[in-house]
Amino acid sequence: MTGPNPGVGLDRPHHDGSALYVSTETPRLGDRVTVWLRVPAGATRPGEAPYAAAYVRLLHDGEPRFVAAVRDVERSSERETWWRAELECRNRVTSYRWLLSGGPVGWLWVNGAGVHYRDVPDGANFRIVAADSPLPEWHLDAVVYQIFPDRFARSAAADQRPTPGWAVPAAWTDPVEIGSPSAGSRQFFGGDLDGITEHLDHIAALGFDVVYLTPFFPGRSNHRYDAHTFDEVDPVLGGDEALRRLTDAAHARGIRVLGDFTSNHTGVTHEWFVAARADEQAPERAFYFFDADGRYAAWLDVPTLPKLDHGSPELRRRLFDDPRGVVKRWLGPDGGLDGWRIDVANMTGRHRGDDLYHEVARELRAASVAANPQALIVAEHCHDTSTDLTGDGWHGVMNYAGFTRPVWTWLTSADNPDAPSDFLGQPVRVPRLPGELVADAMLDFTSRIPWSSLVRSFTLLGSHDTSRIRTLVGGDPALVQVAAGLLFTMPGTPMVTYGDEVGMPGRFGEDGRRPMPWPAGDGTHGDGWDEGLLAAYGELVALRRGSVALRRGGLRWVYAAADALVYLREAQGEAALVHVARRGHGPVSIDVSDLPGIADSRVVKGGGGALEAFTLRLTAAGPTVGIRIWQTPKSGARHNGQSAGAEDQGGRG
Amino acid sequence: MTGPNPGVGLDRPHHDGSALYVSTETPRLGDRVTVWLRVPAGATRPGEAPYAAAYVRLLHDGEPRFVAAVRDVERSSERETWWRAELECRNRVTSYRWLLSGGPVGWLWVNGAGVHYRDVPDGANFRIVAADSPLPEWHLDAVVYQIFPDRFARSAAADQRPTPGWAVPAAWTDPVEIGSPSAGSRQFFGGDLDGITEHLDHIAALGFDVVYLTPFFPGRSNHRYDAHTFDEVDPVLGGDEALRRLTDAAHARGIRVLGDFTSNHTGVTHEWFVAARADEQAPERAFYFFDADGRYAAWLDVPTLPKLDHGSPELRRRLFDDPRGVVKRWLGPDGGLDGWRIDVANMTGRHRGDDLYHEVARELRAASVAANPQALIVAEHCHDTSTDLTGDGWHGVMNYAGFTRPVWTWLTSADNPDAPSDFLGQPVRVPRLPGELVADAMLDFTSRIPWSSLVRSFTLLGSHDTSRIRTLVGGDPALVQVAAGLLFTMPGTPMVTYGDEVGMPGRFGEDGRRPMPWPAGDGTHGDGWDEGLLAAYGELVALRRGSVALRRGGLRWVYAAADALVYLREAQGEAALVHVARRGHGPVSIDVSDLPGIADSRVVKGGGGALEAFTLRLTAAGPTVGIRIWQTPKSGARHNGQSAGAEDQGGRG
Repeated sequence: MTGPNPGVGLDRPHHDGSALYVSTETPRLGDRVTVWLRVPAGATRPGEAPYAAAYVRLLHDGEPRFVAAVRDVERSSERETWWRAELECRNRVTSYRWLLSGGPVGWLWVNGAGVHYRDVPDGANFRIVAADSPLPEWHLDAVVYQIFPDRFARSAAADQRPTPGWAVPAAWTDPVEIGSPSAGSRQFFGGDLDGITEHLDHIAALGFDVVYLTPFFPGRSNHRYDAHTFDEVDPVLGGDEALRRLTDAAHARGIRVLGDFTSNHTGVTHEWFVAARADEQAPERAFYFFDADGRYAAWLDVPTLPKLDHGSPELRRRLFDDPRGVVKRWLGPDGGLDGWRIDVANMTGRHRGDDLYHEVARELRAASVAANPQALIVAEHCHDTSTDLTGDGWHGVMNYAGFTRPVWTWLTSADNPDAPSDFLGQPVRVPRLPGELVADAMLDFTSRIPWSSLVRSFTLLGSHDTSRIRTLVGGDPALVQVAAGLLFTMPGTPMVTYGDEVGMPGRFGEDGRRPMPWPAGDGTHGDGWDEGLLAAYGELVALRRGSVALRRGGLRWVYAAADALVYLREAQGEAALVHVARRGHGPVSIDVSDLPGIADSRVVKGGGGALEAFTLRLTAAGPTVGIRIWQTPKSGARHNGQSAGAEDQGGRG
Repeated sequence: MTGPNPGVGLDRPHHDGSALYVSTETPRLGDRVTVWLRVPAGATRPGEAPYAAAYVRLLHDGEPRFVAAVRDVERSSERETWWRAELECRNRVTSYRWLLSGGPVGWLWVNGAGVHYRDVPDGANFRIVAADSPLPEWHLDAVVYQIFPDRFARSAAADQRPTPGWAVPAAWTDPVEIGSPSAGSRQFFGGDLDGITEHLDHIAALGFDVVYLTPFFPGRSNHRYDAHTFDEVDPVLGGDEALRRLTDAAHARGIRVLGDFTSNHTGVTHEWFVAARADEQAPERAFYFFDADGRYAAWLDVPTLPKLDHGSPELRRRLFDDPRGVVKRWLGPDGGLDGWRIDVANMTGRHRGDDLYHEVARELRAASVAANPQALIVAEHCHDTSTDLTGDGWHGVMNYAGFTRPVWTWLTSADNPDAPSDFLGQPVRVPRLPGELVADAMLDFTSRIPWSSLVRSFTLLGSHDTSRIRTLVGGDPALVQVAAGLLFTMPGTPMVTYGDEVGMPGRFGEDGRRPMPWPAGDGTHGDGWDEGLLAAYGELVALRRGSVALRRGGLRWVYAAADALVYLREAQGEAALVHVARRGHGPVSIDVSDLPGIADSRVVKGGGGALEAFTLRLTAAGPTVGIRIWQTPKSGARHNGQSAGAEDQGGRG
């Protein structure tokens, strides 16, 4: 009765957390929020009972309540009924789904995963999270460029600095060392912060407006996730002054800068750990998990990375509450950062019988907001975030579960000797799956977190920790473009790892941390610089930046088949239809008679199909990204208005 | 690729939380537990790659880890491979699922909802919950009889007691008052605890071994959910001495007794609330949510039921910690109770910005265990329990979401004027759904809680708060038997509301709270006493009590279609196959070649089908309950052994 894709099809009633359907993104506790549900005419078929009434089911103090919706006559048309209801945000999280009465079996549930003819648990409910202050807004329009400082660019000043003791120097054109983890982390190319400042042109020209830097605190490795202090920028990178030069130059161009902070552990050489080990009476002793024999807990039992014990109030003071503590200092006027990416966030505060994860996330958020109300906190989280991304801690996550993994399973090449032999830590090769399952997986993971968290999460095709997308798809730049097409048109904040845009390969994290292949003295690049791909990235970023629908629209899945995915992004006044194909496919006909304004749409990127009356015919000759954009009619302009017009008639159940 | 029922079919790899698949139900933190996965030969088809390796994916401190499984040669056969792995219970909850490599797409996930060819979130993971003490065991074999004391039986002593001031007396044969809630709650039939004691024969003869009493604390209503003290049994019911007589008599017959306690609110006449209202300085003032104007929060805004504020340490002391407090006193030697049903548990501790629910559940559990290590705590919870039943608070819930609701949607009659006009508070009539969706709903809800909590939850066809099953199915006693067939053969503890077994009708809660139609002076019963149904209940209880598979077995779904459901219950040494049909259906053929021992099975209840070589042919002429039971071969007897035999060979990934 429900097909395999309960969330796919223009004939499905639809709601999501975007502004088209929810009046207020961040209400305060006790506020009332208006929500809308659209029910296309095609949702019931001839002979079936129509949907007679709509309700929102929500929980108040843990008890289900039903709020009757009314027909919104302003928004409704012959082709579509819009229902409207007002919810009281009685608790910190308002978890709700829609119930329609009538239809083929007498009822229909609508949640974030789609439509259901039987009762469903609350895990895929929509969620509105009350907060004391608005969420950062700039992030909704941002495009992020991730830089691993040792490998992006090297300024002339770097030549003047002594090589640190732990480092094994390498020339910029040397291959990366992938023999052993320890060798790999010691190889030192000498990229620095002034190198980044010098190359902001490249970043700005592509249209990126955020730079996310992996750690700049000093450590004993090129990745610097083993900080020995949080009080200064590694002198090897140019020190505090170089960071200041970078943030000033970036801000002058309208580019924000995010840092990377590990709340789960420090390096074994960290000043706190040194003090803790030297003296059992030191206040820092309680920052770590020492047992009676002086053994300490460490991240994945790696002894150089002792785990922090957030049960220590003094630790939390130094990290969060103290105005000169780690989080606030670098987000304040002196530090110049616009937010943090939190490393190993998913393990933070969790150790055997203890679980302080949510408390730490909330405290870190509160400290950030206190220092910089527009600061953004994005957590590393490599798996299911259903219960970890509750909307009141981290603003978002690196969305591996709901984006990266599904995309990989769609685009991995079938017989690729360079494909990763494990799948982000899972002991299997990435399986190649049909698009129906890929859409299902995306819906399943993304429907379990608040929309406000989803759109503040990084969508990404990979990172410094994973295979490069170029290698994963088997090298074909057309497939990299398909991946990028998904990246720049899906909800969430696209994050690109430096070098992906020029086709940098890499079978796994360290293999992909190659030095950026800047032009040689003669202005030419080596093999690793794909101008065509670079242009395609620039085009996609520009399309996203130019379209409110692509940046902020809701998401309706239109079609999913083995080799093709089609979806709509819809905002107030504008809609975009995206068609991506991993290989050629014959014509797919989509009835678009419920999409007002599409007759005047324009194809802004090839593959947007042919429009014949109310049918859109999509074909692909090979890997394809097609985008079609149109203005939605004037009534759409009132979409975000509160209770437009006179009280609507009818429909109250 | 996955059908609509990812958890249905004997060709699916299977694991659940029962003893057949998990070595230890309640490990301590840090213990190791052995788990098994069975993979039938039919799980891959000719031409498909076999499953080459198996892994358990679990989380340690919030990070996914993979444990390679080995082939268990003792358990494996030509028809089936068993994989075995050992897990460290590093955290309080070990949340895990299985990953198979190989097969049609290269991998397969197995979680509590079934098999999946794409990645899935962790919500339907299997769960092992570490605890400091074993869980109550007796409950796993119990069958519960729910009594509403005012309506079950009236002893001669009741005639001697004055009618309480709030009460409107009624004769035992009067119809129940269903005009208004207030009138309904004041109608007084005068049933009492000695009446129950006098009728223990009825309960024992049916095979029930637990009596659950709705509240016996004094209130100003026949339901007594508005207690004015927790310190005594209502004198109207016979007082403390009558409870003592009842628990003594019940215990002498091997019948346990559960009480009913409301942790969410008290009556407005409760001694604590009276003190709180009289004096702003009274310690009890903090037990409730008073605002500056003296207004107080109340359950669903009903002013006679003021809500308790568990933020008060003194309240929690009086409820939980105090040896003479509510929870401990009645579970101790003086009180004689064997456990509590907790009323409105789902709202307890939840009020606007506060959420102390989990803390209250854990404290209440700890207090219970301290007073009586075998005490059972079962929470009222009428909706999704995914995040509310975590295994470390209440032992179980009233499983409306995972059992009652799905069963109702299968068995409700199509055009029944007496069917409830709402669906347990939902503003729709109960829809009639095909069996595939019913099985899906059961799997979806029950897979989201620990197995140890599922089997300590009440399965029920209704309660004093709902429509009676007789009325819901449209009056047909054959359909009531089908419902009872599900009740007594599914995982969980069957709970029957007094009178269901004789076919008592009722369109909603109060309508169903009719006085039990005991024989009149001449030994005859009125219309409301169906001897055939009574016999059927007795037979089903006896079958359950006689079968370890039905009581404690795991659950494998074999088949689900519109009108028929087939499933297996499997324990060490015994298996049971259950076939229920809501109406007649043509032959269904099931390949049972993977079920050793079934050739020697016996049909213990009609409808068990015909066995022809390795095919079971099931038909139904009308509403049907069929049960077939057999002994599983000797190797099955080792199923619970730890690491049987020499180290197994091969299969390590």
